Amino acid sequence: MTIRRFAIVLTASCLFSLPAWAQQVIASAASPGNVLSVEVQVDGGGKLAYGIKRRGKEIIGLSRLGFNLANARKLDGGFSLRKHTSSEHDSTWEQPWGERQFVRNRYRELRVDVEQKKHDGRQLTVVFRIYDDGIGFRYEFPAQPQLKSVEILDELTEFAVTQPATAWWIPAGELPGLEEEIRKAPLREIGIANTPLTVRLDDGTHIAFHEAALVDYATMWLRKVDGQKLRAMLAPSPSGPAVVRQGAFTTPWRTLQIASDAAGLYMSDLVLNLNEPNKLGDVSWVKPSKFVGVWWQMHLNSGTWNAGPKHAATTANTKKYIDFAAKNGFRGVLVEGWNKGWESDWGHGGADFSFTQPYPDFDLPGLAAYAKSKGVRLIGHHETGANIVAYEKQMDAAYKLYAKLGVDSIKSGYVHEAGTALFTGRDGKPRYGHYDSQEGVRHFQKAVTEAAKYKLSIDTHEPVKDTGVRRTYPNWLTREGARGVEYNAWGNPPNSVDHEAKLVFTRMLSGPMDYTPGVLSLQGADGKVFNSTQAKQLANYVVIYSPIQMAADLPENYEKYPAAFKFIRDVPTDWADTRVVNGVIGKFATIARKDRASPDWYVGAVTDDQGRTLPLALDFLDKGKRYTAEIYRDGDGADYRTARRFDLVVETKTVTAKDVLQLRLAPGGGQAIRLVPQL
Amino acid sequence: MTIRRFAIVLTASCLFSLPAWAQQVIASAASPGNVLSVEVQVDGGGKLAYGIKRRGKEIIGLSRLGFNLANARKLDGGFSLRKHTSSEHDSTWEQPWGERQFVRNRYRELRVDVEQKKHDGRQLTVVFRIYDDGIGFRYEFPAQPQLKSVEILDELTEFAVTQPATAWWIPAGELPGLEEEIRKAPLREIGIANTPLTVRLDDGTHIAFHEAALVDYATMWLRKVDGQKLRAMLAPSPSGPAVVRQGAFTTPWRTLQIASDAAGLYMSDLVLNLNEPNKLGDVSWVKPSKFVGVWWQMHLNSGTWNAGPKHAATTANTKKYIDFAAKNGFRGVLVEGWNKGWESDWGHGGADFSFTQPYPDFDLPGLAAYAKSKGVRLIGHHETGANIVAYEKQMDAAYKLYAKLGVDSIKSGYVHEAGTALFTGRDGKPRYGHYDSQEGVRHFQKAVTEAAKYKLSIDTHEPVKDTGVRRTYPNWLTREGARGVEYNAWGNPPNSVDHEAKLVFTRMLSGPMDYTPGVLSLQGADGKVFNSTQAKQLANYVVIYSPIQMAADLPENYEKYPAAFKFIRDVPTDWADTRVVNGVIGKFATIARKDRASPDWYVGAVTDDQGRTLPLALDFLDKGKRYTAEIYRDGDGADYRTARRFDLVVETKTVTAKDVLQLRLAPGGGQAIRLVPQL
Repeated sequence: MTIRRFAIVLTASCLFSLPAWAQQVIASAASPGNVLSVEVQVDGGGKLAYGIKRRGKEIIGLSRLGFNLANARKLDGGFSLRKHTSSEHDSTWEQPWGERQFVRNRYRELRVDVEQKKHDGRQLTVVFRIYDDGIGFRYEFPAQPQLKSVEILDELTEFAVTQPATAWWIPAGELPGLEEEIRKAPLREIGIANTPLTVRLDDGTHIAFHEAALVDYATMWLRKVDGQKLRAMLAPSPSGPAVVRQGAFTTPWRTLQIASDAAGLYMSDLVLNLNEPNKLGDVSWVKPSKFVGVWWQMHLNSGTWNAGPKHAATTANTKKYIDFAAKNGFRGVLVEGWNKGWESDWGHGGADFSFTQPYPDFDLPGLAAYAKSKGVRLIGHHETGANIVAYEKQMDAAYKLYAKLGVDSIKSGYVHEAGTALFTGRDGKPRYGHYDSQEGVRHFQKAVTEAAKYKLSIDTHEPVKDTGVRRTYPNWLTREGARGVEYNAWGNPPNSVDHEAKLVFTRMLSGPMDYTPGVLSLQGADGKVFNSTQAKQLANYVVIYSPIQMAADLPENYEKYPAAFKFIRDVPTDWADTRVVNGVIGKFATIARKDRASPDWYVGAVTDDQGRTLPLALDFLDKGKRYTAEIYRDGDGADYRTARRFDLVVETKTVTAKDVLQLRLAPGGGQAIRLVPQL
Repeated sequence: MTIRRFAIVLTASCLFSLPAWAQQVIASAASPGNVLSVEVQVDGGGKLAYGIKRRGKEIIGLSRLGFNLANARKLDGGFSLRKHTSSEHDSTWEQPWGERQFVRNRYRELRVDVEQKKHDGRQLTVVFRIYDDGIGFRYEFPAQPQLKSVEILDELTEFAVTQPATAWWIPAGELPGLEEEIRKAPLREIGIANTPLTVRLDDGTHIAFHEAALVDYATMWLRKVDGQKLRAMLAPSPSGPAVVRQGAFTTPWRTLQIASDAAGLYMSDLVLNLNEPNKLGDVSWVKPSKFVGVWWQMHLNSGTWNAGPKHAATTANTKKYIDFAAKNGFRGVLVEGWNKGWESDWGHGGADFSFTQPYPDFDLPGLAAYAKSKGVRLIGHHETGANIVAYEKQMDAAYKLYAKLGVDSIKSGYVHEAGTALFTGRDGKPRYGHYDSQEGVRHFQKAVTEAAKYKLSIDTHEPVKDTGVRRTYPNWLTREGARGVEYNAWGNPPNSVDHEAKLVFTRMLSGPMDYTPGVLSLQGADGKVFNSTQAKQLANYVVIYSPIQMAADLPENYEKYPAAFKFIRDVPTDWADTRVVNGVIGKFATIARKDRASPDWYVGAVTDDQGRTLPLALDFLDKGKRYTAEIYRDGDGADYRTARRFDLVVETKTVTAKDVLQLRLAPGGGQAIRLVPQL
């Protein structure tokens, strides 16, 4: 027997004013341009739900809102409206770095305050921010004596997709660092997904489900309840309920970017807009830039992280990279394997790492000084083996050391065999748990905010997903959080030929990725070859956004391909503007970006295994100006499946805003263009 | 970057003997009749996996085994074989009550002892019991100083179904009491499922995934990882990791009943066989029997649970039921709404129930005595509102009271709005959590073992699922745990016409169900009608097994249909043998059962919305004997969609074991037969 029965009985006793199945709209609002609208309803049992329409057509059907709590009666049902308010907002803010300098933040906010009269009048607010290109909503828990602490067992938020849809997804909670291959499947066939979860409805509407401002809360995964109905699933904690908070707090924003096509998804600034403004003040010490590193040779098995005959992080080898960086205008030199501890079984525990003691053959202070003398900076490296307990003990000393040496950015790593990291549980004891748990989220945040105190920027590998927190803490420069180019060295299989065309409209919707592009040699370990042409390696610098970009290949390989290498030297990593010219998920993508430091534009286009010709209207260029287009394109016979993957043509053309270029991409190919105004 | 990369590096340093992707068979065994076989493998990273073949064909592909722990390094990878042993077992045991008196337990056991040499030599054993009709396996944690307590974050057990398959499933963790409609979908489209999860592979093989001996552990749900690969998902605890155990312990058995058809699934005794033998000794005080009750009238809205003008549980009304029971040979009279506390908002909290104080208009001692004087027993009723904290405080006193009054069985209820029950968390504080959590499982178990001390039998409504624990504690007579007949009173919609034909091969694989059949009036509240003919109501007594069965309709309705009612009076609830004659999931099912107290056989057959004629070979009857078949069949024009749903023909025939009857079932119909040997 269920309460359904008793809802009727209770109705008879007038406890509810409506039968349990009756729906009543209690609030609604539309976006400023009237593209999207939200309706909030309550049923006879006082259960809250919302639905979303786009241009009048329902795209998210009635979807539940609420929580099961562990320490109190649930926040699900028994709700009645206290009040709702609606307000319109329009402002523009400036990013210290990013894909565009100025971001417009135009939305209508709908605040819905509800209470559970029967449960001591407990209150909850659901706030919707309704943009023309997406919707975010979050729950606000006020400070209230009836609910001083909140222990969340389940978040019940649902997303009922009304039409049959195709999903591009990765499983949640599996490989740490979100390094699963991106899968394509009918939405009704997906498992538990991490976000962004991108879906294309049968009518062509695209939706990306994600979250914004994931701070001190468990990561939201999405599980299918039934059919095409998704429900939030909070990453479990090893210490108790998924989320424990005290006093007033807000949840992360649950976000839906909604557009007519894939390009429209990418053009939305919803997730950044829903984050808090910069809390660090002057962040001129955060430096978008390019770097090289003692790194790829280890992936090729020609060097090792640990000390020994093949140790890569030696003083001599690092000097070679510093010299190469200085000569070619790269600001950073990353060195992995510089510190003691790599001999141990670190991938399963990581307790033996020192973050302050270099190997004897690595002269850390000397190299830091040498780099500075050449106008270059070492990039620090902290591989934790996902032993966060051990790392946090050394973190302050390690940050201090780097700051003292003038190292101003750190790549951190959390490699662990699939599953769990070791962090401090809520009871203060060490606990193995999911990276995505509230405890995990707290650590990644702490690593960044503590780093800010030393004016250090962070590039997190094997991270929790990006939710736009970089707006608030601009020293969180980038992260990995997907399969990077390293999989082409040793992946079994390597990255698929359509990987970038999928990444752009899935993982990249969350934020920058340290993709480590630019391996012009197109070769991994043991004879493995990339599913890519050389031109595509260049295009990736524009297509896959990161404020710090690696030139990942070995210096000697760059010396073999000076023409191609010129583009890598030229391309900036900080942009005044970004336009997605076209794109179909997993098929192709073309992105144009304007340099922030010059009037130059850059274009990157990538394709899957299909060769194709994509028109590129140059209407983003300044009218009336002539530009020199430096074009790096696939040769006529280029093909990622043959030795002709190296066929690259570099040519220049004079163009204007009126021109339409035809970008011919080889199978597995790409194209990169620099557009420089003529004087 | 992931550890995959480093597995190669580590291989180079000889930490592993095989590359991570190489598989090595470390143990294998086949069932006694060589129908099913299991292979256990380890890969180069020491990860454990198993696979299952049926008659040489792989049906479960390589599937992971292991755990993520919260308080220690995971038990996943780094394993090497210590030893494996195999042994054959064949015995027969007797049930105090059940679907058959004697149960054969014939299997080959394969014990695989593994250790993690690098992790302090931690040991784990996986034990497979391989039957011809199914496989169970469990993990055994030995007492070991390196792992004194075990906190399980995730159980990683997988079930990789090799062929496309159709699933019949219900979502896990949603409606308490497992009262979801049974859904049919391609296996790849299911959400998080409770078990039994029944699937039919494209080659016709049927598999039911379930568990046996769920004691002091979290309930296993099944989630889809990807495609058709399922993984155990332990019901979350509000107090920390899903499972916390000390010292040596074993997990529940993970079970797969495997057969060529649906009938074969039902005929398997795997789940009972994998439970511990009876721990209660003499259980002659456990009484399979039939009962009536002050119950259906509340569902029809003509009575109320709480006191007032329509209060149903009055002394006078109860006497009427006692008289009716005595007159018609029913042993029990259930009375709901007898105790104080129903006025409050109990379905959301349940704190106000008294389990010892009757309403003033209900003379509990007097009625108990009156019943006994008539050879009838009151059946106790404990509705907890899922407030287990409050219930456990009163449980002992409540049991004591009933025992004193001669009440020897109790129907308990745990109605709560979807989601959570209130129980005592691991920290001793009240916690709202899932019924299926380790805490929930512990309570349901405690309610039964404590009841045994007072020789009380339990019929749990809104229970955790059955996993055969009734073998160990035979006073756990039955439970609800699915949509019962009550949904026909007020369900929106009521039970579907194919409900029973689905139940038999899904929910009923787990154990008895208090289905409350026999509503001959075929009518719910507010003019709702059953999707059933009257004949089907009779068939349900045979088709849906329970050692205690209700005659759920109002006495006055039985008086209207004396011919049909005779079958309800005759049919026993305890069986010497059971044969599934035929069945297709969701379409039809025919079951023949031999009475344990007489030489009579009973047959029940039910169909979905299709009328059909099913042959019934009577070869189960004693050869050479003549039987009188008392046949209760759908009339020729019977149809569940029309008023002719009441068309019932009762006829008798003389038959022998050589006869084959043709059972003609109307759309939505059924047939019930009693076979009595002629002298």
